[in-house]
Amino acid sequence: MPFFSPQMLALASEVVKAATAKKIQIATAESCTGGLISACLTEVSGASAVFDRGYVSYSYDSKTAYLDVPQDIVVACGAVSAEVAQGMAEGALKHSVSGIAISATGIAGPGGGTPDKPVGLVYLGVALKGKSYAFKNQFSGDRGEVRLQTVETALKTLLKEIAEA
Amino acid sequence: MPFFSPQMLALASEVVKAATAKKIQIATAESCTGGLISACLTEVSGASAVFDRGYVSYSYDSKTAYLDVPQDIVVACGAVSAEVAQGMAEGALKHSVSGIAISATGIAGPGGGTPDKPVGLVYLGVALKGKSYAFKNQFSGDRGEVRLQTVETALKTLLKEIAEA
Repeated sequence: MPFFSPQMLALASEVVKAATAKKIQIATAESCTGGLISACLTEVSGASAVFDRGYVSYSYDSKTAYLDVPQDIVVACGAVSAEVAQGMAEGALKHSVSGIAISATGIAGPGGGTPDKPVGLVYLGVALKGKSYAFKNQFSGDRGEVRLQTVETALKTLLKEIAEA
Repeated sequence: MPFFSPQMLALASEVVKAATAKKIQIATAESCTGGLISACLTEVSGASAVFDRGYVSYSYDSKTAYLDVPQDIVVACGAVSAEVAQGMAEGALKHSVSGIAISATGIAGPGGGTPDKPVGLVYLGVALKGKSYAFKNQFSGDRGEVRLQTVETALKTLLKEIAEA
């Protein structure tokens, strides 16, 4: 029984192929997806050639102590913010031997949403040597669907960045 | 579309409930499952109360530098061994604020098997304060099925250990 759809596995396979061709190692830093991005990438046989390591930083402490996201940024911007997403990706890149890191922090629901930060709000972060950024997404659906759309967007972002690297 | 079966989610939900009742935080250290154990636990709404962090240590370097598994043990016993599984769980416990850590290292296939260490061989490790151990499993089926059985065994082990803690 596969966990991931054939479409998602095809996308993960493309990422692994592209990273293998460019000899780029990948790291992940996940909050709302809880390890699903790394789980999807490593469902591809041969992923060990390019997947280095993943951080699942679910607790507050894990974001600051584990990924070096400054505590004042987490407090000022909130755990679900572009600043924290970018900091998580930068921390994962720094604490790995990888050439690219992708991160995700968001509100998967059903609880935790506010008018300013509704369920489905997810920030993705990307870090490469000399470049890092984060971007906002508003996904829809239940907890599983929000997480699924986050994984898909993360894989597409990895593919784009690896192609341009 | 859910990633995990209702049975697996029910098991993950039981783990979250038991850990919440005992106020025990959970950490994971995954190799062959690549983040699926943490992904399954965090599919449960409310998991943030007990899931602290997860390590996906796929590369050689990530097992030694990231989880403090001594390099001579990885070389002498191999990455897929009881010693490394136990070391990964101990490393995850040490580098977290958790009360229990679970780890998995194995050969999910289809490649990587040898007569001594066939596809489906998976070691699970457990660490709590004052106690740590690892045990061997021989699972069957394809890559997805081996990973699925590993997640199920990890969740059942967490449930048993949390109940006894």
